[in-house]
Amino acid sequence: MKMRVIVTLKPGVLDPQGEAVRHALGSLGFEGVNKVRQGKMIELDLAETDPVRAEEQARAMCEKLLANTVIESYALEPLEG
Amino acid sequence: MKMRVIVTLKPGVLDPQGEAVRHALGSLGFEGVNKVRQGKMIELDLAETDPVRAEEQARAMCEKLLANTVIESYALEPLEG
Repeated sequence: MKMRVIVTLKPGVLDPQGEAVRHALGSLGFEGVNKVRQGKMIELDLAETDPVRAEEQARAMCEKLLANTVIESYALEPLEG
Repeated sequence: MKMRVIVTLKPGVLDPQGEAVRHALGSLGFEGVNKVRQGKMIELDLAETDPVRAEEQARAMCEKLLANTVIESYALEPLEG
């Protein structure tokens, strides 16, 4: 089954990439953009078909590789199909 | 209101970053990972409070800046709060 992992910087951690996007949007004439935060999206296609076990696997992958848990948090979302 | 933008490479476009993650997961002993695709997540905090207009704004931002629509597709998701 497919799992989607969203990795974001923890609140309070400076996000220069998001800030650059916000600035660029302003330069392009987009107004009313209060804040931009940028993160990563990783889509995992796992052989495991049981949703609970697939989530366990994905969580272990996040802890070991996908997220730097000192400054980043992650969220797991099962995807259909 | 907040909008979440997910930018992914279109199907068929080579994703070396995802492939590198898949390989690294294999090296760490994770089995049963068929495929990994990596994309971007951008969280926009917009002053606009109307959901329809906020989505219109976010779509325009994607077309102009956030996504390279030749090779990338994007999805918009309203966020609570």
